[in-house]
Amino acid sequence: MSVLNFSSESALRIGKVRAQMAEAQLDAVLIADNANIYYTTGAMFRGYVYIPADGQPLIFVIRPIDLTGDDVVNIRKPEQITAALSERGMALPGVLGLELDDISYSDAERLRKAMGADCVCNCSALMKRARMVKTDAEIEAIRQDGLRQAAAYRQIPRVYQEEMTDIEFQIEIERLLRLEGCLGYYRTSGPLMEINMGSVLNGGNADNPTPYDFAVGGGGADTSLPVGADGRTMRPGTTVMIDMCGNFNGYQSDMTRVWRIGKISEQAVKAHEVSRDILRAIENMACPGVPVALLYDKAVEIARAAGLEEFFMGHRQKAMFIGHGVGIQLNEWPVLTPRSKDVLEKNMVIAVEPKFVIPEVGAVGVENTYQVTEGGLRCLTVFPEEIADLL
Amino acid sequence: MSVLNFSSESALRIGKVRAQMAEAQLDAVLIADNANIYYTTGAMFRGYVYIPADGQPLIFVIRPIDLTGDDVVNIRKPEQITAALSERGMALPGVLGLELDDISYSDAERLRKAMGADCVCNCSALMKRARMVKTDAEIEAIRQDGLRQAAAYRQIPRVYQEEMTDIEFQIEIERLLRLEGCLGYYRTSGPLMEINMGSVLNGGNADNPTPYDFAVGGGGADTSLPVGADGRTMRPGTTVMIDMCGNFNGYQSDMTRVWRIGKISEQAVKAHEVSRDILRAIENMACPGVPVALLYDKAVEIARAAGLEEFFMGHRQKAMFIGHGVGIQLNEWPVLTPRSKDVLEKNMVIAVEPKFVIPEVGAVGVENTYQVTEGGLRCLTVFPEEIADLL
Repeated sequence: MSVLNFSSESALRIGKVRAQMAEAQLDAVLIADNANIYYTTGAMFRGYVYIPADGQPLIFVIRPIDLTGDDVVNIRKPEQITAALSERGMALPGVLGLELDDISYSDAERLRKAMGADCVCNCSALMKRARMVKTDAEIEAIRQDGLRQAAAYRQIPRVYQEEMTDIEFQIEIERLLRLEGCLGYYRTSGPLMEINMGSVLNGGNADNPTPYDFAVGGGGADTSLPVGADGRTMRPGTTVMIDMCGNFNGYQSDMTRVWRIGKISEQAVKAHEVSRDILRAIENMACPGVPVALLYDKAVEIARAAGLEEFFMGHRQKAMFIGHGVGIQLNEWPVLTPRSKDVLEKNMVIAVEPKFVIPEVGAVGVENTYQVTEGGLRCLTVFPEEIADLL
Repeated sequence: MSVLNFSSESALRIGKVRAQMAEAQLDAVLIADNANIYYTTGAMFRGYVYIPADGQPLIFVIRPIDLTGDDVVNIRKPEQITAALSERGMALPGVLGLELDDISYSDAERLRKAMGADCVCNCSALMKRARMVKTDAEIEAIRQDGLRQAAAYRQIPRVYQEEMTDIEFQIEIERLLRLEGCLGYYRTSGPLMEINMGSVLNGGNADNPTPYDFAVGGGGADTSLPVGADGRTMRPGTTVMIDMCGNFNGYQSDMTRVWRIGKISEQAVKAHEVSRDILRAIENMACPGVPVALLYDKAVEIARAAGLEEFFMGHRQKAMFIGHGVGIQLNEWPVLTPRSKDVLEKNMVIAVEPKFVIPEVGAVGVENTYQVTEGGLRCLTVFPEEIADLL
């Protein structure tokens, strides 16, 4: 028998959701998306979280069947929710928020009918916005991730062997991460980010376009999963960019570092330094009140001034962002794009990843995860940024 | 520049989809789900596959941007699809199928508007039904998975060490699978099957209920991912049930085997033998024309006759199926439930997993993946079924 109750941390988060709900004039939201369930309850189950504008939120659990608690209602199907609300003397919502960007059309229709709401609104963006600014506990979870990810990254040179393929190398890195406590599983928003524990990109493979919205690509090991390592033997004169899973506790840190095999071209060395220059510039200008689009513009400006714009954020295929929020999911808000209207707020957590793809040589650049503080960016992924040698 | 054209295999599969479309009287389907994109094209990209009832199917690709081919149309957004159809002299569909169980409400609404169809129907079930009976190439892909999964499973006793935790053991098994070519990534249908590379269940942890529709559970390593190994040290007198990822090529085999540490209870030994008896009975009765519900009933009947019904398909929380289709996704049709109306057809591929959870000892039982042939079931996961010793 497991017991689930709303903690004070849950109350804090639900308060943030309610602030957004008030702005959108919703009577209630019914949450069904895994990431939002975890956000509001600190637990993962099959079911729903019902948050009325006023009154006690309720947790409706289908599975596991032994989950109980003062605010838990065990149900077999969502059609039982309204009766449970009525029993508790709670009004049925006239204007109901459902996560229309995250749940299937069929599930949304089923919930709409089950709840009998006059009007259904899309609360996906509202939830993303509530989650965009992190609580202290969330930031500490991501900081812990950063420490453990760094502990695993520190051991990377140890598992490299000459004539290894990129996939063999990735397998050993996966093992290092898992032994440090990495859960191995990535949560992303949207259905289009299929990958196993992240990306190890060697040499020219970094220039292979992918279907996914990752900053850099890779051809992948199989046509069914066309992203990341492609099985090539790692050769002198190339780089290996490592951007692997930082989920150790339900939250994620996002950190990329680059190693080299033998001597690499001066252009690649320079591009890596420009990436670090971009990070320093962004660290200097980023604080609450700064529009994220300015960060993007600054990054492009520095890359252009260095004569490296052609290789910035990809070469054959380019990503149109230089960073993104990170938390329960890898791709949270704000997204650092040129067109974003978002403005930095205190305690947002963002990954900034100015990367370059140098044909033949590979990808270079650094990605750090930062907390936005009044005093600027606080790095949560502390690890040497220089390109280190693998042999 | 990558080239994508419909192969003869794609034509075969699209033929099966069209047979279902004719029955549902659809003018066209617009496919957006990754598994269905892979099914109909043999490739994975961000975009859509448009299949009209008559005329040439088209592949609309957003990313990667360098994917071309005779039937490929590169677009930036789905709103460009109708113009491309008109340019080719193709009629716009009056009755359009969209995968309403698989794509988000927002995406479905966007596609409905973009296509301007008079009527949108849900084609998710139709696609599942088309994929339910496999082609020869699909069956061969799953057979290859079974061979490689068996090659990895054979090495499992080698990586076990006394006083290991279940997670440490799982990490070494993940590495074995990956070194054999496992892609590490699971495709499942629906959003509720979050797991990293499968399940290693030791001792009493097998009796911990989970939110997910897996046959047996496990408490998991973290509250954010409550399934599978929970970090316990593996002790004498317990079993380890290993049900790990069989995706080596976009298709998956599903195989479970059990090992023991020291001597286990007679009840557990007996239950494992009853699981094998159930498999033999199902192998004997399963052929085209047999309702899958009968397979379920037979399994329960044998478990009950052995006095083990209480432990069958879980103990504290029970699964209400004894098997499922398997292919691109782990949980395909048919699902072997007591209420299913499905009837076995030649070249369905099903995983059958009669499992028992014996409190304190752990999970026992065998899972095999089978091809349905005229002559009965053909096992695609050939590996010794006996409980083997880990020490």
